[in-house]
Amino acid sequence: MAKDKKQPRPRAETPKGFQDYFGADVDERKQMLDAIAGVYHAYGFDALESSAVETVEALGKYLPDVDRPNEGVFAWQEADDEKWLALRYDLTAPLARVYAQHRNDLPTPYRRYAMGPVWRNEKPGPGRFRQFYQCDADTVGAASMAADAEICAMLADTLERVGIPRGDYVIRVNNRKVLNGVLEVMGVAEGDTRAAVLRTIDKFDKVGEAGVRELLGQGRLDASGAYIDGVGLADDKAEPVIAFLTSKGADNDATLANLRVAVGDSTVGAEGVAELEEIAALLAAQGYGTDRIVIDPSVVRGLGYYTGPVFEAELTFEITDEKGRPRQFGSVAGGGRYDDLVKRFTGQAVPATGISIGVDRLLAALRAKGRVGGAARGPVVVTVMDRDRMTDYMAMVAELRAAGIRAEVYLGNPKNFGNQMKYADRRGAPVAVIEGAEEKARGVVQIKDLILGAQMAESATLEEWKERPSQIEISRDDLVAEVRKMLDAQDD
Amino acid sequence: MAKDKKQPRPRAETPKGFQDYFGADVDERKQMLDAIAGVYHAYGFDALESSAVETVEALGKYLPDVDRPNEGVFAWQEADDEKWLALRYDLTAPLARVYAQHRNDLPTPYRRYAMGPVWRNEKPGPGRFRQFYQCDADTVGAASMAADAEICAMLADTLERVGIPRGDYVIRVNNRKVLNGVLEVMGVAEGDTRAAVLRTIDKFDKVGEAGVRELLGQGRLDASGAYIDGVGLADDKAEPVIAFLTSKGADNDATLANLRVAVGDSTVGAEGVAELEEIAALLAAQGYGTDRIVIDPSVVRGLGYYTGPVFEAELTFEITDEKGRPRQFGSVAGGGRYDDLVKRFTGQAVPATGISIGVDRLLAALRAKGRVGGAARGPVVVTVMDRDRMTDYMAMVAELRAAGIRAEVYLGNPKNFGNQMKYADRRGAPVAVIEGAEEKARGVVQIKDLILGAQMAESATLEEWKERPSQIEISRDDLVAEVRKMLDAQDD
Repeated sequence: MAKDKKQPRPRAETPKGFQDYFGADVDERKQMLDAIAGVYHAYGFDALESSAVETVEALGKYLPDVDRPNEGVFAWQEADDEKWLALRYDLTAPLARVYAQHRNDLPTPYRRYAMGPVWRNEKPGPGRFRQFYQCDADTVGAASMAADAEICAMLADTLERVGIPRGDYVIRVNNRKVLNGVLEVMGVAEGDTRAAVLRTIDKFDKVGEAGVRELLGQGRLDASGAYIDGVGLADDKAEPVIAFLTSKGADNDATLANLRVAVGDSTVGAEGVAELEEIAALLAAQGYGTDRIVIDPSVVRGLGYYTGPVFEAELTFEITDEKGRPRQFGSVAGGGRYDDLVKRFTGQAVPATGISIGVDRLLAALRAKGRVGGAARGPVVVTVMDRDRMTDYMAMVAELRAAGIRAEVYLGNPKNFGNQMKYADRRGAPVAVIEGAEEKARGVVQIKDLILGAQMAESATLEEWKERPSQIEISRDDLVAEVRKMLDAQDD
Repeated sequence: MAKDKKQPRPRAETPKGFQDYFGADVDERKQMLDAIAGVYHAYGFDALESSAVETVEALGKYLPDVDRPNEGVFAWQEADDEKWLALRYDLTAPLARVYAQHRNDLPTPYRRYAMGPVWRNEKPGPGRFRQFYQCDADTVGAASMAADAEICAMLADTLERVGIPRGDYVIRVNNRKVLNGVLEVMGVAEGDTRAAVLRTIDKFDKVGEAGVRELLGQGRLDASGAYIDGVGLADDKAEPVIAFLTSKGADNDATLANLRVAVGDSTVGAEGVAELEEIAALLAAQGYGTDRIVIDPSVVRGLGYYTGPVFEAELTFEITDEKGRPRQFGSVAGGGRYDDLVKRFTGQAVPATGISIGVDRLLAALRAKGRVGGAARGPVVVTVMDRDRMTDYMAMVAELRAAGIRAEVYLGNPKNFGNQMKYADRRGAPVAVIEGAEEKARGVVQIKDLILGAQMAESATLEEWKERPSQIEISRDDLVAEVRKMLDAQDD
């Protein structure tokens, strides 16, 4: 048994970059994830919960964000066999390991979804945590573009199901093979220059067309005044990349026509365009118009990581940023095809495609839209006027709960009634129940409408106070019915 | 970007003692935890999700299982400030940290529940994993025995809600203070002897009354033939402990009377008996009879850890063990009052009481009772007869899903139809849909009842095959209605 050694008291603190989630925050995330899981399930995806801990060997170094290659994992060494173990940093690397390990027992193709925390050993910052949720859906073992189209359609359905109305989001689709075709046409299909061009393209979101043009050429001064060396391509040589990035036309057909020009006679480029064409056709046939899912070669996120189609879901409504300026909400999900992931383990390439939803960002979007949190209501609080009659109070909450009403007895020291009302307030209680000895003798209880009480305290006139008393006396026998009536009135 | 270095292939393996959970396993656990959360929520408990990672300092060394003091945590050192971090080993130590950290913002008392994985760095064994789920509910800041009674009542309600019928479980309640009183009467209220007596009592479950008697005295030969040294008490001195452990009477009143004798004139002992009396009275008044919750001093698990009332929920129905022998299912939840937990951080004792459900054990019990898994059904699989008509097949699954029927298109290589049927089998598909070019031309599809087909293949006569064809041709327009009819027939 632990001895009480004379040590300084430990600090009660979450480690740097970690946080706790309370009550409604947990409930709202769960509500959203349950809705997402419902859509995934309907599409035939099965849940997978892999272990949070993996061997470092199995995880590998496959963080998708190429900008920060030094990002780490939380790792430690086993005492017995000295193997290094680590917390997973995403849900994709574990999927590759699971699929390689269990492939003989899994259906092919294998559709799976996974939801849960991942951990990154990186410097925490504002809004940037070292533990956060991911929510992924992937199809492993399907080379068909129908798998990619399905992922996009499912993502659109998911966004609408959780509460993002049609018109407030768009899913953009690009293809790494088309870019490869462009690079082939440019004569930089391999080697360091190709890598440098890829890195540059990845900055398109930040620096725009002119910026990419400069960075592919001699370089540019960035916002901080530092000079960023360019890739050093001649101006005309950069044109195909720019043409690719800006090839979005008035509709998918126009975009595809532009891309066909951009990839010239490159075989891989033509393959990429054909893939996009097939995805577009499948989605159009199912009624997913370009207002929901659109071919857009300006989507560059993940182009360096994925091997075929790339998807990104953006929310297009405006929110006000911390400086009061309106801006688009932005990306909430991304994904694509990565045919090499399982190959690390088995030597065989296994086609795979999938999507990852940024759980915290989507939840923030739903909060911005007022789409979550409505259901969060505190419990009815039964106060304790006479500590010897706890059984009476417990009988009340039991009755309320049996009728489906969330209810609790005050369990602190009942001496100070003000503390009980403060407690009810902190609990967000809609109703308080009060039964002193005098009420008990008369077979009545007082019920107090705390929501109405708070509203009245803010703004009501004397007449209103008289007309709508926030506290009423009722027969003890009518407790459930009268509390229900009060709750219903609050919902109106 | 990650380079493809020439390294040996990583092994696709979960680390030792970890495992992955697939499909129905995940769904069934979620279904059970959702039901539990529903009860906890109704009782006014709020969800808390603390970070998986804690400072080692905050975790302390408070593993409840006194038999294995060397059990460890998975820990690592931070690069910058050299602090040690670790994965939580339970949900109680984090609760103490959270409460100490946020106590000014939390209601008092604070009722919270938590569900999630915990990690133990111990030697894995059969059925013994290094990551597993816990599900806890605790009330912090309430000294009243009403809090303990509430926890017991809530646990009973929870077991019934998830599917353990009344009569198949019993919640036993003991009290550490009563034992302290007994030790006081014996004159071993403090020091090494007291610790040794506590350790011995903890073995009561395993060695029984005679064994405890020997271990309190000179010692005993254990099953392996090894001699275990005893505490060395004189025979008559051990009697009060034995009297305590065996003091359960015909009803709570009889048990309490026996305990009053056992604690003699010890103040703390009398306090413990009074606490048990209060809990029993509160529960009886709410209709929780001794068939559900009973005072039972033979419950010793956790007596060394808790400071007041101790609870244990046991399932009393029989299962067949791995050797084919009938045995009682045993414990699925335990808890008690631990008033010192927050004190580590703040210096102030904070009363707290709670319960922890063994998620895997309870789930195993529900499986043994056939109470989970019924809802798990695979998706309807739409097969691909003509790979150019994926849009037709995708339209079918979209229609089925819109009607609330889980459905998917086969996304593998469609060339070999046998593979498609094998896939449908592995997915547990209830129905397969088949539409070749010929059917398409006639506006019909085939739907195949895979459940009936499997049953018929096992046992049907030729007549039955003719009467109940497992594959029927229907109009394409009736797809949803006919699939629904087939699924409904399977449910009968």
